[in-house]
Amino acid sequence: MFRFYFLICGLFMLLLETGLNAAEPLPSWNESSSKTAILNFVTQVTKAGSDHFVAPEDRVAVFDNDGCLWCEQPFYSQLAFAIYRVKKLAPEHPGWNREEPFRSILLGDTSKAFASGHKGIAELIAASHSGMTATEFSQAVEDWAANDRHPRFERSYIECVYQPQLELLAYLRENGFKTYIVSGGGIDFMRPWTERVYGIPPEQVVGSSIKSVYEVRDGIGVVVKKPELNFVDDKEGKPVGIHHHIGKRPILAVGNSDGDFQMLEYTTTGTGPRMGILIHHDDAAREYAYDRDSHVGKLNKGLDEADSRGWVLVSMKQDWKQIFPPAE
Amino acid sequence: MFRFYFLICGLFMLLLETGLNAAEPLPSWNESSSKTAILNFVTQVTKAGSDHFVAPEDRVAVFDNDGCLWCEQPFYSQLAFAIYRVKKLAPEHPGWNREEPFRSILLGDTSKAFASGHKGIAELIAASHSGMTATEFSQAVEDWAANDRHPRFERSYIECVYQPQLELLAYLRENGFKTYIVSGGGIDFMRPWTERVYGIPPEQVVGSSIKSVYEVRDGIGVVVKKPELNFVDDKEGKPVGIHHHIGKRPILAVGNSDGDFQMLEYTTTGTGPRMGILIHHDDAAREYAYDRDSHVGKLNKGLDEADSRGWVLVSMKQDWKQIFPPAE
Repeated sequence: MFRFYFLICGLFMLLLETGLNAAEPLPSWNESSSKTAILNFVTQVTKAGSDHFVAPEDRVAVFDNDGCLWCEQPFYSQLAFAIYRVKKLAPEHPGWNREEPFRSILLGDTSKAFASGHKGIAELIAASHSGMTATEFSQAVEDWAANDRHPRFERSYIECVYQPQLELLAYLRENGFKTYIVSGGGIDFMRPWTERVYGIPPEQVVGSSIKSVYEVRDGIGVVVKKPELNFVDDKEGKPVGIHHHIGKRPILAVGNSDGDFQMLEYTTTGTGPRMGILIHHDDAAREYAYDRDSHVGKLNKGLDEADSRGWVLVSMKQDWKQIFPPAE
Repeated sequence: MFRFYFLICGLFMLLLETGLNAAEPLPSWNESSSKTAILNFVTQVTKAGSDHFVAPEDRVAVFDNDGCLWCEQPFYSQLAFAIYRVKKLAPEHPGWNREEPFRSILLGDTSKAFASGHKGIAELIAASHSGMTATEFSQAVEDWAANDRHPRFERSYIECVYQPQLELLAYLRENGFKTYIVSGGGIDFMRPWTERVYGIPPEQVVGSSIKSVYEVRDGIGVVVKKPELNFVDDKEGKPVGIHHHIGKRPILAVGNSDGDFQMLEYTTTGTGPRMGILIHHDDAAREYAYDRDSHVGKLNKGLDEADSRGWVLVSMKQDWKQIFPPAE
């Protein structure tokens, strides 16, 4: 009997303290209709007894990665990785000095490297992403993450993540949400660092993939990456990837481009309380400004339909106090 | 200051009580070398400061389903589902009275239905598993789980699960493991009931799959199942499925057939403490006895190599006090 008394007293006081500490969620978000909408949604679905209450196991939140959780300009970070990797591997491939797209990459002329279109990109991906075990690939990604630098922000790419989104991820998890990444980027390219950077473990990362096969090398079972496409987790692929990995319709989806349209549509056309959020890149001074005509992260249909679908359009310029975390 | 005193007193007393209650884990397992090996392994990897300690996020345990967590004789339960489904749908398909394999299924002659081999099975899977949304398929599985009965045990198939394994799953989770199913069976066939029956949520189920596509029907985004194979999560497919869904090498794998060989090999050839377990069906009286020559759940290579690989061979007859949970 006494133990329950002690326990309840202790827990009550701890909860009180926690409540006081958590007085201001999302500190890097300005007071705005976007922030209010997020806070209201989370309050609504977590309030026991409310008509809009959602059980913790159904509080699934999905986030796009490129342009939603981290910077995707002036080009996708995964392309920066591929280029970094080709430069690193070049001494073992003397022929690359004569073959495109490698020759142009080694000469630093990225636009010429991709003048041949898909063929050049496919060769680059094959050379930089396959022919090694999953563990070796993970090490290659860690090497890049530690050593390559974003050309404009002069910090590692994994430091070019959005501080307000780190806070949103944490706030959702504090409220019983399970947070997932659902990205068009490579699943194995994200997993080595998503737990450290976003607090999202490998099993909660959904992405595009190339084929893998199982082999035994020197008595050790290993998964080997092959130069063949397996799944494209973009556009109508996103709901399919969500179904395959999670097996549940999310209640909250956050994206930034038309590649996320179907993910937001799938999320917000379910029954019960739902929320869709689009991050609008409108801050050329602190990051980049692009939408309808961008070659990367094009947002056109989403801008047209956000209002009629009840999706929240977040202005990076107006709604975010800061873009990136303080430099390390 | 006081709150911590209260909290610590309360927690201490609760822990004491929990400790006393948990005095005997795995109650349906007889005292045996198998049980001892499991308890020792879990103690070893959870003991802080031990050389063999494994951080909670790396305590990944994978379980096969058919013949490992539930009965797979006299045929796979998923085949029973397909037959149940064909009978249910027959009134809408008058032609099935003349077409194989449907004609033989409707006449109750399963062996004749599959005399045509893969073609008949493919047609059966297409008719029973595709052409509907994922939600509709889930409802069809729930209908089958509630109403079909195992021919020998005269209870629902989802009650033909192994009580000792339910206890093992719970014991592992109490010790900070994350438990996954990695099955050759269909991922969408398992997900509707694995949380209720095994305590394993949909996102921790890995399995074989057919292709899915995203569509909008009456304004609602839905995932639709197509009659085309996507992934076979068996044999060398299992490590690939594990890598794709979990992104980590497990430290514990439990199977029962040669279809699980590569999963156990992948798990146990990693560095650090590892455990492989094979359930041996040697109990014809209480369940079934089969191994090297079985058409379902063949265990041949595993029997040959379990000893040299240090895998624990569990005898259902010797090691398990009871097979199934009490009838509901």
